[in-house]
Amino acid sequence: MATIGFIGLGNMGGPMVANLVKAGHIVKAFDLSPVQVGKAIDDGAQGAQSAQEAATDVDFLVSMLPAGKHVESLLVTGEGALFDVVSPNTLVIDSSTIDAATAKRVAEVGASKGISFVDAPVSGGVGGAVAGTLAFMVGGTAEQFAKAQPILACMGKNIFHAGESGAGQIAKACNNMLLAIHMTGTCEALNMGLKNGLDPAVLSEIMKQSSGNNWTLQVYNPVPGVMDGVPSANDYQGGFQVDLMFKDLGLAMELSQQSASPTPMGSQARALFNLHKAKGNGGLDFSSVMRLYQE
Amino acid sequence: MATIGFIGLGNMGGPMVANLVKAGHIVKAFDLSPVQVGKAIDDGAQGAQSAQEAATDVDFLVSMLPAGKHVESLLVTGEGALFDVVSPNTLVIDSSTIDAATAKRVAEVGASKGISFVDAPVSGGVGGAVAGTLAFMVGGTAEQFAKAQPILACMGKNIFHAGESGAGQIAKACNNMLLAIHMTGTCEALNMGLKNGLDPAVLSEIMKQSSGNNWTLQVYNPVPGVMDGVPSANDYQGGFQVDLMFKDLGLAMELSQQSASPTPMGSQARALFNLHKAKGNGGLDFSSVMRLYQE
Amino acid sequence: MATIGFIGLGNMGGPMVANLVKAGHIVKAFDLSPVQVGKAIDDGAQGAQSAQEAATDVDFLVSMLPAGKHVESLLVTGEGALFDVVSPNTLVIDSSTIDAATAKRVAEVGASKGISFVDAPVSGGVGGAVAGTLAFMVGGTAEQFAKAQPILACMGKNIFHAGESGAGQIAKACNNMLLAIHMTGTCEALNMGLKNGLDPAVLSEIMKQSSGNNWTLQVYNPVPGVMDGVPSANDYQGGFQVDLMFKDLGLAMELSQQSASPTPMGSQARALFNLHKAKGNGGLDFSSVMRLYQE
Amino acid sequence: MATIGFIGLGNMGGPMVANLVKAGHIVKAFDLSPVQVGKAIDDGAQGAQSAQEAATDVDFLVSMLPAGKHVESLLVTGEGALFDVVSPNTLVIDSSTIDAATAKRVAEVGASKGISFVDAPVSGGVGGAVAGTLAFMVGGTAEQFAKAQPILACMGKNIFHAGESGAGQIAKACNNMLLAIHMTGTCEALNMGLKNGLDPAVLSEIMKQSSGNNWTLQVYNPVPGVMDGVPSANDYQGGFQVDLMFKDLGLAMELSQQSASPTPMGSQARALFNLHKAKGNGGLDFSSVMRLYQE
Repeated sequence: MATIGFIGLGNMGGPMVANLVKAGHIVKAFDLSPVQVGKAIDDGAQGAQSAQEAATDVDFLVSMLPAGKHVESLLVTGEGALFDVVSPNTLVIDSSTIDAATAKRVAEVGASKGISFVDAPVSGGVGGAVAGTLAFMVGGTAEQFAKAQPILACMGKNIFHAGESGAGQIAKACNNMLLAIHMTGTCEALNMGLKNGLDPAVLSEIMKQSSGNNWTLQVYNPVPGVMDGVPSANDYQGGFQVDLMFKDLGLAMELSQQSASPTPMGSQARALFNLHKAKGNGGLDFSSVMRLYQE
Repeated sequence: MATIGFIGLGNMGGPMVANLVKAGHIVKAFDLSPVQVGKAIDDGAQGAQSAQEAATDVDFLVSMLPAGKHVESLLVTGEGALFDVVSPNTLVIDSSTIDAATAKRVAEVGASKGISFVDAPVSGGVGGAVAGTLAFMVGGTAEQFAKAQPILACMGKNIFHAGESGAGQIAKACNNMLLAIHMTGTCEALNMGLKNGLDPAVLSEIMKQSSGNNWTLQVYNPVPGVMDGVPSANDYQGGFQVDLMFKDLGLAMELSQQSASPTPMGSQARALFNLHKAKGNGGLDFSSVMRLYQE
Repeated sequence: MATIGFIGLGNMGGPMVANLVKAGHIVKAFDLSPVQVGKAIDDGAQGAQSAQEAATDVDFLVSMLPAGKHVESLLVTGEGALFDVVSPNTLVIDSSTIDAATAKRVAEVGASKGISFVDAPVSGGVGGAVAGTLAFMVGGTAEQFAKAQPILACMGKNIFHAGESGAGQIAKACNNMLLAIHMTGTCEALNMGLKNGLDPAVLSEIMKQSSGNNWTLQVYNPVPGVMDGVPSANDYQGGFQVDLMFKDLGLAMELSQQSASPTPMGSQARALFNLHKAKGNGGLDFSSVMRLYQE
Repeated sequence: MATIGFIGLGNMGGPMVANLVKAGHIVKAFDLSPVQVGKAIDDGAQGAQSAQEAATDVDFLVSMLPAGKHVESLLVTGEGALFDVVSPNTLVIDSSTIDAATAKRVAEVGASKGISFVDAPVSGGVGGAVAGTLAFMVGGTAEQFAKAQPILACMGKNIFHAGESGAGQIAKACNNMLLAIHMTGTCEALNMGLKNGLDPAVLSEIMKQSSGNNWTLQVYNPVPGVMDGVPSANDYQGGFQVDLMFKDLGLAMELSQQSASPTPMGSQARALFNLHKAKGNGGLDFSSVMRLYQE
């Protein structure tokens, strides 16, 4: 049983805290919104009055924030920066999806102060957070990974050691870029079939059992009526928002630019989600990009 | 046991004939090249002196030719066109990968003469043809499909009824366009990971178990050293040639244009294979598009 | 003064005939629609009862038809094909925009029968046809070009000798592909400026006087309010329809595929016009693609 | 006659200083490299020992630096930040090409300290800097623009007031994105013509006089042999490097992402320059992207 500070109790952080509690850990939870802290208390966590309180005397400190600037401010540059608060025994785990450059920079500052920091972004969405089936992609040393693994395993199913510091964010950016490529590609293949008279369920089945097989055909079909229990069956409500996919594709483009890695397909996918978002669809599930293709 | 005429004994047609013979059928095989006919005889087929001879007094007539113009000429417009030769009891099965418009036109002419014609292009490559594990995507009536199914099952594993006449070719074009999208997308995600220090085997595994999962990561990894027994492990020899993928993407673009179905991702994939082909790589396996991204 | 047969009296052909008449030529005009023939008679042409009549005893025969299949049928393969009717002294000029392969094939058949045929597609739209300021891009020998030039000069301003047979169609496809690239690129640059607070008129002026200068900024600005007398000032009515640009981009893609010439930018432009067309904008002027970018 | 501090004496800054001196101004020049300061002294400038010295007691302070972080550090966040040094009478002009967000942020800090700051990036390259024919795109108030205009006119020909603070950088990003689109589009249109037998000089002329007309066809033809005195005539040496175009496209993508402005064509152009750069062509002129298309 460990004592864990947890900062950022939104759609993802909230259920992650609940799963840590269920696994028997003591969780000191903080969020800028007292309402969210209240919910965490209801789930069995201890409420903290401040980020500093949540970070004090803990074995692990987990953060789940919107972007790199929030993480860097919280830990390094802001007032009461937590790297001046946490003990050297604490392993700091950032599960936010942020740019790899910031993740590496924060880890370096941590190292210079004797503090262990790993990047551990997640995949799997709100559903995965609630079910405790998230995938974690971890960037850090083998030792840090070994220490983080059992804690992450309380919140997720697949815990990957992607490589050194920053590698978790890099793996996440690569994976989500590829997911965006699948989704747009699958939408346009299905749409072309549809426009030429094929039944989308039949075509989906054929491609799933052939070389066109991919994750979206398996569990996230974008055409309404083909699959139950997915956002396309629910008017594209819930799921993983277009706005979030657009953010992730921005991170992938940043990585592409900094490392001069060509991304013609990823760039194309970003452009398509951008066109879709420009028509007011940012709040829909990302499989709604199907509608961009349709009349 | 059926009597089957078979026209077109190339890399694909040759082993398909061998599998029909193995299943106990009588095959009358013809090719413009006597050498290929000789090989078919060695495999147990009867050699035919002409396409007309192969098409006479058979239960099924199978064709495996390079493009729509060859199929249309053989069956409809050329000298000694086979639709004037075959009996109304013969089911004509075209397994060539051709444009859907030609397939539909040929089927219509057939119907007007009382001849049954289905389009049944395959997926699975030379390896699948030899192993008898091809996928067939069939366009025709339910009755025609029911009749063709047991014959196709001698040469393949998954026999799909895609829909009405032309639907086989449409499904094939959609599937292969999606495959081209996967392959290029997977190459660029892996290359971006590599350029940022990740191990491609580790990143491949992470994406395969996450939402980036697709057929290329499962059985056809494009990075040398990650997977055994695939073209990338053999200097991109063998497999499915860039030239053939480029041809298939041309068919997909034709379908997109005729039906005004938007294909931004498929168009992008075609452009990338074209850039790759322009540098003299047309004869390599299509996973060699990895090299387009690399330094 | 020459005697000229003219077949195809639509939006383009009609005013072209009027300009030939104005220049003092005798024009024998035919169209499948008697209404169109009537209008040509009003403009001073002689009405012909059939294509064959229009093609008999003329110095020049001009055709202006929708697609390659119409041209090939009219001249070569259809009933009463005109290559069996025209005299060897007649120069056949096809001003339709069609695929280069058909243009070359028709020219070859013509040559085999001793008939001179040039491809001479136009640029400049209905406005240019009325004003007699079309550009003609001519494919044929130097001698054929010299003979066609004075006739074309009655209908246009710039008469280019693009090269040998087919070169006119090739030049047209290249030019219109580049135009589509300009238009989409200019729309997205202006839209990005707009979304970041710039005045589109100011940004247009800056780019026009800088390295961003192109034809659309000079005479065809796509943002309503920046320029008078252009389709964007008139709710994108008139001008050059999205459907026609989509057709031309299809011809460019066909040429790209046949010659394995990479066209990543042209393919992208085609995809964007396709997305725009899919939302019901096929009948608007092509500068309306501006709306694809906007909220 | 004004006294002008100038910081950053590279390929661009050096000749800009020389032109200010020629126009009769006193220039206090500083660069981290004493060699560059020496050259400026040779051109008639006064050498400054530090940025602070160059910024003291001047009417104008001009900076010409590689990226936003250098500008922000020099003026705002670094040690001896110049906003703590310059007098309120000094107009600070940043001619670096940087991201608009940084430009706006720096201007805001300046305003809070009573210091006037305008962004004024240039277009025209080293040739334009030497000849004094640069284009300046200025972001600031009308008053600031009026004050800056005569100084900028010593170094350039077209001085544009793009709009409020940041607007200069935004206009530059839009313009250069559009230039990249022209260049790649023109290369692929010319290459397709070439591959189909057209003379690139003839096709260039046709498109220049038609709707394909753009800046690259006018003064910067990418095909060797078509135009004299351009980089393509000199093995793509000199001119505007691929690396710099790639940097500018990165700034455009950042702007696109922050403002959610769709840029499918600009993204495509970035991907193409990236593919070209990955093959070791970063140091060539950007028109060398022609080679990406060729065999």
